Amino acid sequence: MAITYTMIHSHLPATINDSLNRVSVIRAHQEVFVGPPSSNRATNRLAESLSNLLHLHIENPPRARTTNVSWSLVSQQYNHSGPPMSPKEIISDRWREIHGSNDWDNLLDPLYPWLRREILKYGEFAQATYDAFDFDPFSEYCGSCRFNRDNFFGKLGIDKNGYKVCKYIYAMSHIEMPKWLKRSHLVDTWSKDSNWMGFVAVSDDEETHRIGRRDIVVAWRGTVAPLEWYEDFQRKLEPIGHGDAKVEHGFQSIYTSKNEQTRYNKTSASEQVMNEVMKLVKFYREKGEEVSLTITGHSLGGALALLNAYEAADTIPGLPISVISFGAPRVGNIAFRDELHQMGVKILRMVVNQDFVPRMPGVVFNESLQMFDEITGTLDWIYTHVGAELKLDVRSSPYLKRGFNLLGFHSQETYLHLVDDARRDIALVNKACDMLVDELRIPHCWYQLENKGLVRNAHGRWVKPERDPEDIPSPVGESHVQAHAFEQYKFV
Amino acid sequence: MAITYTMIHSHLPATINDSLNRVSVIRAHQEVFVGPPSSNRATNRLAESLSNLLHLHIENPPRARTTNVSWSLVSQQYNHSGPPMSPKEIISDRWREIHGSNDWDNLLDPLYPWLRREILKYGEFAQATYDAFDFDPFSEYCGSCRFNRDNFFGKLGIDKNGYKVCKYIYAMSHIEMPKWLKRSHLVDTWSKDSNWMGFVAVSDDEETHRIGRRDIVVAWRGTVAPLEWYEDFQRKLEPIGHGDAKVEHGFQSIYTSKNEQTRYNKTSASEQVMNEVMKLVKFYREKGEEVSLTITGHSLGGALALLNAYEAADTIPGLPISVISFGAPRVGNIAFRDELHQMGVKILRMVVNQDFVPRMPGVVFNESLQMFDEITGTLDWIYTHVGAELKLDVRSSPYLKRGFNLLGFHSQETYLHLVDDARRDIALVNKACDMLVDELRIPHCWYQLENKGLVRNAHGRWVKPERDPEDIPSPVGESHVQAHAFEQYKFV
Repeated sequence: MAITYTMIHSHLPATINDSLNRVSVIRAHQEVFVGPPSSNRATNRLAESLSNLLHLHIENPPRARTTNVSWSLVSQQYNHSGPPMSPKEIISDRWREIHGSNDWDNLLDPLYPWLRREILKYGEFAQATYDAFDFDPFSEYCGSCRFNRDNFFGKLGIDKNGYKVCKYIYAMSHIEMPKWLKRSHLVDTWSKDSNWMGFVAVSDDEETHRIGRRDIVVAWRGTVAPLEWYEDFQRKLEPIGHGDAKVEHGFQSIYTSKNEQTRYNKTSASEQVMNEVMKLVKFYREKGEEVSLTITGHSLGGALALLNAYEAADTIPGLPISVISFGAPRVGNIAFRDELHQMGVKILRMVVNQDFVPRMPGVVFNESLQMFDEITGTLDWIYTHVGAELKLDVRSSPYLKRGFNLLGFHSQETYLHLVDDARRDIALVNKACDMLVDELRIPHCWYQLENKGLVRNAHGRWVKPERDPEDIPSPVGESHVQAHAFEQYKFV
Repeated sequence: MAITYTMIHSHLPATINDSLNRVSVIRAHQEVFVGPPSSNRATNRLAESLSNLLHLHIENPPRARTTNVSWSLVSQQYNHSGPPMSPKEIISDRWREIHGSNDWDNLLDPLYPWLRREILKYGEFAQATYDAFDFDPFSEYCGSCRFNRDNFFGKLGIDKNGYKVCKYIYAMSHIEMPKWLKRSHLVDTWSKDSNWMGFVAVSDDEETHRIGRRDIVVAWRGTVAPLEWYEDFQRKLEPIGHGDAKVEHGFQSIYTSKNEQTRYNKTSASEQVMNEVMKLVKFYREKGEEVSLTITGHSLGGALALLNAYEAADTIPGLPISVISFGAPRVGNIAFRDELHQMGVKILRMVVNQDFVPRMPGVVFNESLQMFDEITGTLDWIYTHVGAELKLDVRSSPYLKRGFNLLGFHSQETYLHLVDDARRDIALVNKACDMLVDELRIPHCWYQLENKGLVRNAHGRWVKPERDPEDIPSPVGESHVQAHAFEQYKFV
């Protein structure tokens, strides 16, 4: 077991000057990351190391098989006329294995095509939580979903996945996490406290037939918060369950907070999800169907997926539960990991080698090292990853830029590109970052509304249009449609 | 005549550190700007002065009558339900006066409403040259007009102005001006040498009736080049005409360059425009109509408008010619100004007090002052403005931010907002800058294509669509449509 010391500077390049006093150090020791005393000598080499970071950190890059392919060959391979993703197969005979019953043994290297296609499906659900989110601070609906549940998949062009959305999830937090909650600049908004945080969906009959069971999906939205945000979480583990398990306080706060005074979080995200999942499981089990639960999420969403899986396994006996996460940070301690394992939760984590977020929390500041020393020695307080890992590497794709790119390395579309070995429509990678080589001629950050959503009104003036009434979030609407939705289940 | 010394730093804030060695000094002496020996003591105060620049430069702000209006009152005034601009009146009885026959005496302060409306019309033509321009370096048509002549005004929503485009203008340059020419990153493009540079249009029968004569318009596209670009022009005056007149070499190069090897500039911009204007004048004069020529442009476009007016006045006797320019730099020397005046060309320059471009060229570097001293004393070599000036001030509008904003101060939409005293749709100001106060909740830089022009093809992949065949620039098409267009004139 080699122990490597590497200096990480985890801020964006633009803030280098501001943060020269802050040095972050990591001791890499398999999956457990703790912080040793810092080397002050390293401070001056900080900016230099930033550019070297990639090389320092990466040993034995997996699957770098296309690195030597010349560009002319690559561009021949790239064409616009193929299908935009790998084909789907009927997997009903082997769904338990694909769902992780054997911990994906022998399915990951090389990646088994049927598993690949399922990972992509769930990854698209995770991506959808970003694509549908209203990020516009000038919108009165900032922080909500731009579409209603009925047209959600259709608007995003992923209705072919064969699922229907049953419920939207809203979350708040009792602790201050400014980079997490998106708030409108306006005074009068749909909600001052809550954000739309994802959805519960269920497979339709055709998809159910293909995959061999009724599949309930929970997709959790992540966040584009900078790495400092994850750093701030460190050493705030709090107990969960009845044993020694501890999880990150910030994640748990988002998952469990509620407040009677709010419109969307009179119940917590946890309660909303568990209530819906339990109803669905009961409903389909009573019809004699086999049911599974698959929880997915990218980044922060992957962390929430783990908390959700822990609770679901504790609450619903006999339910096959998998977590399919992308670029997720560590969530809890070793006891948390062991309990998940004992409860039979299967976890598959997609990790891009160059992505920093999966290394969080675990980066420790100088100023806090002394306090940290006092508590090392007890594994209760060390964050650890759980489950199986699918290693991905930016250098395995000839379409991706090699330069340091915090946003690009962490982007969910980069993950999906690498999982699908570049069969998935390559242009998607650049939706919200600048990660594709220039030769492809795909603009960067191209996922944008025409005129930022402004339209011309009857008088010829440019205005922000009213949202369609059915797309306006409403707590009343949620429960109304709830009853309506259960009617629907009888016919799916 | 007070002589004021003021230090200008004409770079963008981002390059402050790079340019600390370059100090620019201006001596303001009415309309003639020359450079005195620099004060080296000033170097260290450069960054400081940048933020103070506005206050140093502005004395007696004109029309600051709304400065003290409170925001609550302002927001009441601002509504989405009015017409998006001042109304048009029938001006046929007084068109010569509006067109400048009396040098706009008594029409500018206060601005006469009929004149205001005409300035806005021409200003919209100048703005249209930006709105229709293909800036996308990944487009094979980068540097061309995105629309064809027949649907040009319709696509931009200004067909109500009552003009028809007759001809597109293309320009190149024999001298290297990298910030001027927009080039595609692609190998195979519509043109490697030329850019679309504007259009010739003519009033239709209805508009002709309203304004009392057949009006030919030439609109010249400007550029968003930084101020350094204009600085680089200094002291490159070259002779024009038969007398002492001299004009900026760079502007003249764009106006007159041609090359047999190119597709779009076998003839120069000058030849293209003059050929078309002469045909139109002949055509309508033979029908017994009164004809006028109005040449407009913003920034560099305003400079080209002056060169164009000089040539037109020299070529076509008896034609009433006006230039309506916005934020244009100086173009030539005093002899050039005097010749334009003697030929009867009427020039109305809109100048925003805070805009730097109208002060260019005229800013002189330290290192060139010695050489400059050798040539002072002869007015042949001093740039000067010509014609009447309509003074505008950012501080006269309660909707505009006060902070230093090079781009916002120079933006043509800011000009149009100030000319129309905020009656024109206010949201337009933020199309390509961040100039509106936050309370208005208008996103900044909102003029953008959906998904940067990418669309989903039949396979579900995101691709750059083919341009409609009629919107693809073609030299052959130009001459074909030329004949076709003249057929049309008989029926307009």
